[in-house]
Amino acid sequence: MSKKKSKKKASTTPFTDALRVGEGFQLSDVDSRSTPAFDGDKDAGKEALAAADAEMDDLQERLYADGSAGGTEKLLLVIQGLDTSGKGGIMRHVVGAVDPQGTEITAFKAPTKEELSHPFLWRIRKALPGPGMIGVFDRSHYEDVLIVRVHNLVEPAVWGRRYSTINDFEQSLVDDDTTVIKVMLHLSHEEQGERLAERLDNPEKYWKYNPGDVDERLHWDDYMEAYQAIMDKTSTEAAPWFVVPADRKWYARLAVQQLLLEQLRALDLQWPEADFDIKKEQKRLAETR
Amino acid sequence: MSKKKSKKKASTTPFTDALRVGEGFQLSDVDSRSTPAFDGDKDAGKEALAAADAEMDDLQERLYADGSAGGTEKLLLVIQGLDTSGKGGIMRHVVGAVDPQGTEITAFKAPTKEELSHPFLWRIRKALPGPGMIGVFDRSHYEDVLIVRVHNLVEPAVWGRRYSTINDFEQSLVDDDTTVIKVMLHLSHEEQGERLAERLDNPEKYWKYNPGDVDERLHWDDYMEAYQAIMDKTSTEAAPWFVVPADRKWYARLAVQQLLLEQLRALDLQWPEADFDIKKEQKRLAETR
Repeated sequence: MSKKKSKKKASTTPFTDALRVGEGFQLSDVDSRSTPAFDGDKDAGKEALAAADAEMDDLQERLYADGSAGGTEKLLLVIQGLDTSGKGGIMRHVVGAVDPQGTEITAFKAPTKEELSHPFLWRIRKALPGPGMIGVFDRSHYEDVLIVRVHNLVEPAVWGRRYSTINDFEQSLVDDDTTVIKVMLHLSHEEQGERLAERLDNPEKYWKYNPGDVDERLHWDDYMEAYQAIMDKTSTEAAPWFVVPADRKWYARLAVQQLLLEQLRALDLQWPEADFDIKKEQKRLAETR
Repeated sequence: MSKKKSKKKASTTPFTDALRVGEGFQLSDVDSRSTPAFDGDKDAGKEALAAADAEMDDLQERLYADGSAGGTEKLLLVIQGLDTSGKGGIMRHVVGAVDPQGTEITAFKAPTKEELSHPFLWRIRKALPGPGMIGVFDRSHYEDVLIVRVHNLVEPAVWGRRYSTINDFEQSLVDDDTTVIKVMLHLSHEEQGERLAERLDNPEKYWKYNPGDVDERLHWDDYMEAYQAIMDKTSTEAAPWFVVPADRKWYARLAVQQLLLEQLRALDLQWPEADFDIKKEQKRLAETR
């Protein structure tokens, strides 16, 4: 993170490098108002976000085309963060800027009775993206080592085993040609207080407020500890975590978009070749005029 | 349609009025290059599309908020049209401009074995939008009286019964507070030929071309007859059809957006009231600072 920023100047993956969680990472060292890998201000950030739309469209369409032609690459973006950390804004402004035919958002809420009767990865597996698709998880299997751990919804021995289960699971996704991007939106305690207060001040936002949000806020330190454990145990080489400072919404959106872009570029996907005889089809078509 | 355009000047639902399929409607009378309810050119059309974004955001969020607060309203947009009629562009540029958290696109392809083993509405029912959502069907149950009728994939007596089954089904959706908007993108035979030719001329578009498209094109007149039967039998008061001239992509996108907007406006949804004690919550929140 910021303290460990690489000195390489010619990096073609600046956000990936700056935000990736490596060994010795400490969540408490991250300044949630900082803007790693970006020097500009809010206006410049919004401009940079919009300026990347065309490249995102192109790369996403190549991924989709590849999938439709029998390719196996797919992408999974996992978004985690406490209440008001801006998950919805990421869905709306980053994922929402991509062709909806090539993206699938799944929001994981409190598990249903049926979901609870299965292993915790059951509902996750059902929502995995197919070839050519960008799957997006709004919360994920990590809730099973977050709220579940903080409130001991299952025995500690049970949630304690889940970290390695998750690592094995994610390794299997990567082996199956899934690019996994795990993002934690990291906001400060103070900023969360302000965002919750806003929802209570504006009648158009009452519906977004839930008294339970304050209950969870009282467990802030427990959540930070649970997130630190996640970073310690599940930021693997196959599926690393990226911690995105989220007090500035414009920066968090730009950072997630750029992480996506950098990974899509790395796939270097080409347009599929024709699997039919072009000249013959042109002739058949001409005969229908 | 164009020949039957209403003379009312003060209509607040100009696209709904101009495009709605009423008694005596003849598909062959529709000029697929026309632009009903809109006087401007392409640039003006693109401007109008972008200019409506903010209102669409507001109305969609009200619908979503209403659903999250226990309201029952939902919306179903059905998009039908022959190959290259621009269904994908509608998904990308009209549906894609709306918050992806409040929209669900389902693309109905050739039915799977499992789907074929159930009644034809089985897979449709599974994809219906829940409260607060905008469901979008890219093709739909109407394929069961289109390709199925043209190729007699089932006995004529079987597809013949489906029109009234569909009417009963859609009436039940409307009774369940679903606003149903059924759109046929109507393009000309000539324009389809040009669009298919483009896909054969551009290596970046080969993946979109399917030799089967020319096979279906040879059945053009049968498809027009099947669509006319749909308009005759299933444009009901509860769930009318709208035929959108689609030779000009910019117009088709604007028209579908405006149909959506006009229906959303008519719902006149208000922001949900707080279901908690605002002062008490402000106090609880303040104590967490």
